[in-house]
Amino acid sequence: MPKVLWLNPIGTDIFDRPIRDVLCSVKNEDTHVDVVSFGTGPKHLEYSYYEALAIPEIVRAVRWAEGAGYDAAIIGCFYDPGLHDARSITDNIAVLAPCETCAHIAATMGYKFSIIVTEELCIPQMMDNLRSYGLGDKVASFKTLGMGVHELRRDEAVILGCTIQFGFYKSIQADLGVPVIDPVVATFKYAELSAELKNRFGWTHGKKYGYKSPPISEIEDWGLAHAQGAPMPRGWNLQ
Amino acid sequence: MPKVLWLNPIGTDIFDRPIRDVLCSVKNEDTHVDVVSFGTGPKHLEYSYYEALAIPEIVRAVRWAEGAGYDAAIIGCFYDPGLHDARSITDNIAVLAPCETCAHIAATMGYKFSIIVTEELCIPQMMDNLRSYGLGDKVASFKTLGMGVHELRRDEAVILGCTIQFGFYKSIQADLGVPVIDPVVATFKYAELSAELKNRFGWTHGKKYGYKSPPISEIEDWGLAHAQGAPMPRGWNLQ
Amino acid sequence: MPKVLWLNPIGTDIFDRPIRDVLCSVKNEDTHVDVVSFGTGPKHLEYSYYEALAIPEIVRAVRWAEGAGYDAAIIGCFYDPGLHDARSITDNIAVLAPCETCAHIAATMGYKFSIIVTEELCIPQMMDNLRSYGLGDKVASFKTLGMGVHELRRDEAVILGCTIQFGFYKSIQADLGVPVIDPVVATFKYAELSAELKNRFGWTHGKKYGYKSPPISEIEDWGLAHAQGAPMPRGWNLQ
Amino acid sequence: MPKVLWLNPIGTDIFDRPIRDVLCSVKNEDTHVDVVSFGTGPKHLEYSYYEALAIPEIVRAVRWAEGAGYDAAIIGCFYDPGLHDARSITDNIAVLAPCETCAHIAATMGYKFSIIVTEELCIPQMMDNLRSYGLGDKVASFKTLGMGVHELRRDEAVILGCTIQFGFYKSIQADLGVPVIDPVVATFKYAELSAELKNRFGWTHGKKYGYKSPPISEIEDWGLAHAQGAPMPRGWNLQ
Amino acid sequence: MPKVLWLNPIGTDIFDRPIRDVLCSVKNEDTHVDVVSFGTGPKHLEYSYYEALAIPEIVRAVRWAEGAGYDAAIIGCFYDPGLHDARSITDNIAVLAPCETCAHIAATMGYKFSIIVTEELCIPQMMDNLRSYGLGDKVASFKTLGMGVHELRRDEAVILGCTIQFGFYKSIQADLGVPVIDPVVATFKYAELSAELKNRFGWTHGKKYGYKSPPISEIEDWGLAHAQGAPMPRGWNLQ
Amino acid sequence: MPKVLWLNPIGTDIFDRPIRDVLCSVKNEDTHVDVVSFGTGPKHLEYSYYEALAIPEIVRAVRWAEGAGYDAAIIGCFYDPGLHDARSITDNIAVLAPCETCAHIAATMGYKFSIIVTEELCIPQMMDNLRSYGLGDKVASFKTLGMGVHELRRDEAVILGCTIQFGFYKSIQADLGVPVIDPVVATFKYAELSAELKNRFGWTHGKKYGYKSPPISEIEDWGLAHAQGAPMPRGWNLQ
Repeated sequence: MPKVLWLNPIGTDIFDRPIRDVLCSVKNEDTHVDVVSFGTGPKHLEYSYYEALAIPEIVRAVRWAEGAGYDAAIIGCFYDPGLHDARSITDNIAVLAPCETCAHIAATMGYKFSIIVTEELCIPQMMDNLRSYGLGDKVASFKTLGMGVHELRRDEAVILGCTIQFGFYKSIQADLGVPVIDPVVATFKYAELSAELKNRFGWTHGKKYGYKSPPISEIEDWGLAHAQGAPMPRGWNLQ
Repeated sequence: MPKVLWLNPIGTDIFDRPIRDVLCSVKNEDTHVDVVSFGTGPKHLEYSYYEALAIPEIVRAVRWAEGAGYDAAIIGCFYDPGLHDARSITDNIAVLAPCETCAHIAATMGYKFSIIVTEELCIPQMMDNLRSYGLGDKVASFKTLGMGVHELRRDEAVILGCTIQFGFYKSIQADLGVPVIDPVVATFKYAELSAELKNRFGWTHGKKYGYKSPPISEIEDWGLAHAQGAPMPRGWNLQ
Repeated sequence: MPKVLWLNPIGTDIFDRPIRDVLCSVKNEDTHVDVVSFGTGPKHLEYSYYEALAIPEIVRAVRWAEGAGYDAAIIGCFYDPGLHDARSITDNIAVLAPCETCAHIAATMGYKFSIIVTEELCIPQMMDNLRSYGLGDKVASFKTLGMGVHELRRDEAVILGCTIQFGFYKSIQADLGVPVIDPVVATFKYAELSAELKNRFGWTHGKKYGYKSPPISEIEDWGLAHAQGAPMPRGWNLQ
Repeated sequence: MPKVLWLNPIGTDIFDRPIRDVLCSVKNEDTHVDVVSFGTGPKHLEYSYYEALAIPEIVRAVRWAEGAGYDAAIIGCFYDPGLHDARSITDNIAVLAPCETCAHIAATMGYKFSIIVTEELCIPQMMDNLRSYGLGDKVASFKTLGMGVHELRRDEAVILGCTIQFGFYKSIQADLGVPVIDPVVATFKYAELSAELKNRFGWTHGKKYGYKSPPISEIEDWGLAHAQGAPMPRGWNLQ
Repeated sequence: MPKVLWLNPIGTDIFDRPIRDVLCSVKNEDTHVDVVSFGTGPKHLEYSYYEALAIPEIVRAVRWAEGAGYDAAIIGCFYDPGLHDARSITDNIAVLAPCETCAHIAATMGYKFSIIVTEELCIPQMMDNLRSYGLGDKVASFKTLGMGVHELRRDEAVILGCTIQFGFYKSIQADLGVPVIDPVVATFKYAELSAELKNRFGWTHGKKYGYKSPPISEIEDWGLAHAQGAPMPRGWNLQ
Repeated sequence: MPKVLWLNPIGTDIFDRPIRDVLCSVKNEDTHVDVVSFGTGPKHLEYSYYEALAIPEIVRAVRWAEGAGYDAAIIGCFYDPGLHDARSITDNIAVLAPCETCAHIAATMGYKFSIIVTEELCIPQMMDNLRSYGLGDKVASFKTLGMGVHELRRDEAVILGCTIQFGFYKSIQADLGVPVIDPVVATFKYAELSAELKNRFGWTHGKKYGYKSPPISEIEDWGLAHAQGAPMPRGWNLQ
């Protein structure tokens, strides 16, 4: 039974239950799902500063998840905060994040795709991330929610660039006539596949170059507190 | 029950049974799998000329598969021959090909990936394809089978750039200590996901710009023979 | 006397005579020109599907032209269908196509050039082709015929992205005050140069990597029907 | 009197005094210099995980420095950890980091530059950073310390990709005959210029898009503890 | 006492005194500043032709400046005419030009920057220069003076793409709320830093590849007139 | 009768006659050819400094050629010195240079091409030029004459990156089995085509953006001496 953890990397649990309900409605029968968030910290990560504060907690949480036997962990924010860092400290868990996952999926659906973001301040970091993923050339445009529908009709594929209510994609998709990717659902379904690829075929992130882990002994010696299995993050109760 | 078709786009059926065996060993329980090939035509597609000859048959076969109720069709050659063409003439079937699929998967496993090809003549077209997929910057190198193991050890992730026997990836992966992606298995598992995304959420290739279909009436008027549902390609018997 | 073949890769001969008239009006005195089309098949190649159907016929036709002693063959469609494939199966004939040729010519006429296309669906494949030719960065824009004249006035050089009546470029050029390249004329004149470069200096496409030919024996063994000189394509009569 | 803070973002002060000595030997007469480090945390940031742990402390420290009246703060690690984050939460302090600074300086010294790194695991993140700075095309190569001198002789400009002892650059520079940039000295001298540009002309990072600050009220409401001026980081004593 | 030469590379001295006044108002106390122009030649360099005429005089002037003991020379035109050429014939003088310098400075102030030019004809060469400097991806847009203020408000950082009156940047900066870089001031302050980096640390342009100097003996033998120290350019009087 | 001028932009006429002999052996029957050089100035342009000195003379010479009724002028140096400048001051003459021309020709002969240069110092400027022409991605490598033959055998197409004796290309081409482009012959044959395209169809460089000419009145007012038709450059006698 594959175990998947969805992490809302923010200091509020108000999204935990609705997202859990969505995931349960789309999961494979034998997949076990948990949804967690942090007990403290910023309640959204829109600003770079908030994201910086959250990253160590995210990395610790993924490390805990690996120790707790999860097969896949999803960092539930479209900035993909800590994605590379979390992979660099884990070996045996698929680590996913929505921007990377959705961009790879959308890239096969048309010549280019567009991303709908909540505010323009998101664009520079998301674009840097997409370049780092190798997919910068597939981005047709970033659009903000305030834009008119007319411009969207010309797109070939659209990604919703934030983790919003399940179902919202449906009406836009019907209206526009192009695939509109919901990042919660798409990332979760891809996580189920990733868990299977890891478990059955050993295909998950490599451990060379940027994903090389530090020696455990060094972590212990420096009192970084997570040497022998990370404790469950404070304030968590598993949804 | 999702139905997936694996097409060996060559004029010989000698690979049909072994590939079917592989797919049956990795498929989800409720997935139905068929493997087919052509009764005539080139027996491999290594040369650009052979590939050109095969493309119309491939496109016809995928069109037939859509009419026959398949949820996903896989063009089983690492040149991805006819991939865009097949998407442009279908609406309701996920069309996959190994280079596109494996490149997207490998891109998340390290900073760059390498591809092992059988001959240097493959490189220009594969590189053009990868650029078209937006992933040119993620390619570390192309390597031919004759290269020494030493150089491979420095890679972060490796894709086997041809459809070979299942199991071969295992020993290389164990030897190199990095993920080694088998294109048959990886593309098939991704096809199962793609079938589900299409069936449940409506997420498949858009039908704008390059994927726009011609009018059915025009196809009929011109006697292109496949207007009202394509017949099963000659010489097929479903494995 | 250099022999040049213009191939209209479509299943109608209605453009053969007018194009032949154009070519005869611009050719060098000692150039021999033939114009041919197919007896069957799609009557235009605007859709990716139609193009896929035409490619094997195009490749066979170019192969026939080489055997028939032509020095250059032009694939008369702005998608450049089968260009690389045709080069890969020929040694002693210059193979040209309008998008590649016109883009190289226009690239020397200003900082960037624009292409006027008949429909937006052309853009993805043409842009992929131009990237493959190494000229993606020189494209200022694609414009559709419906666009106003005002926007065109800002261009530095313009290519007509379809094979239309000779003379049309003249009025646009006079109106806009920038060079407007006619693809029929420009590609033909470049083909004359290419024939001379091949005949006198041996400069034509190399035969390594992607342009490597398959062994003749294999073609014969597989019954691909064109082993010892391709027959004239069905339905041809030389204009 | 411009005040510049050099931050060694690691949990050890062993480099504070030697770096302070270097900076005092190269600073303008009227510049005030302080060097600080953290009392706890990783003792180096070579691994992505350690860097993730350090970033919130770095951002807090830069925010404190702004409140304490520094004109410029330097994040003393060649990964440039938290550089964008620190700029996004400050208005009136120049924030610098060695990779960004040295790359801009070296880019004017030749066609391309090379970077000498301590280990190959540094390369992916540094390359991503350099691409984000817009300078990916200027990188000739990354070299590790173990490489022979012969290969370095072909470079046009070299950056030492770690913060090492002052003076080391001199002997390499004399040996190679090309400029060899010391990141401690170069970043500090650029920080002095940056402080002057900010103080006299108002030229420092803008506050739009990715550098937009969150509202102070939100920071306070969420108990993020640094709303009204950040306290001096624990364990600091200013060198 | 560092000596800096500002060269107005045009055949009129009307800008010499105002620019000298600006530079004196911003220079470090111990910097010596001279401003010169040519006695003959084009009075502006907006057209490529005028620039071509000026380049040999510029190169000779920088060569003279090196012989006359200047530590830095600034080519005072935003086309950066002769920048690489001047570096290729000098060893011991920092050679700067405003587009290169301002682009490097602005690149650290936001995700992208825009450049305000006087006419559209400037754009192709400036864009080529910026690509050559490795910074093409950081350019958000070129804007002409005639554009409305509204569009500028969306920029993150702005460079004034011509050498205009000191003080003009201030009002735009105040109005737009983003850094607006004055090329005279910014390039001069960077030149002071460059002079110090050269004098104290030996960091200036390398002398390999494109910056390699020709042999002095060859220059003498060919009567190129500047072999043993260039004479002061005709018509100069130092401001 | 089309008139073509080959300009050896150096202060020696020793190459004029041999190049004239080559051109006469390859020209169309009715083409008139002249070959000229400068009476003074650098005897080769290998160094950036020499090239800078030659550019104004080159531009004047092309301007003279336009006035003297030439249909095409070739700047006979592989650095393409003054190419854009010369186009910017002429309307009715095709201006060509070997690197631009040969790169466009070679780009159609294989996936990538290599350039054989005399010294490494040529590489940065040539690469910048090729990027400016939009063809940077087609360059496989630069090779110096000292390199072994073995490495060349792997190329797909080769350009000789200097203007050498006619016939040299033949033996290399025979040896390597790939097209080896001679820049003298190829550029001249392309110039004949360019002259025809200009004369018959009006296709030559546009006059917008970077190729916009300055007003004649300004040239006259500033005493730039070439306002009303440029005089024949000093020391010329037409070969």
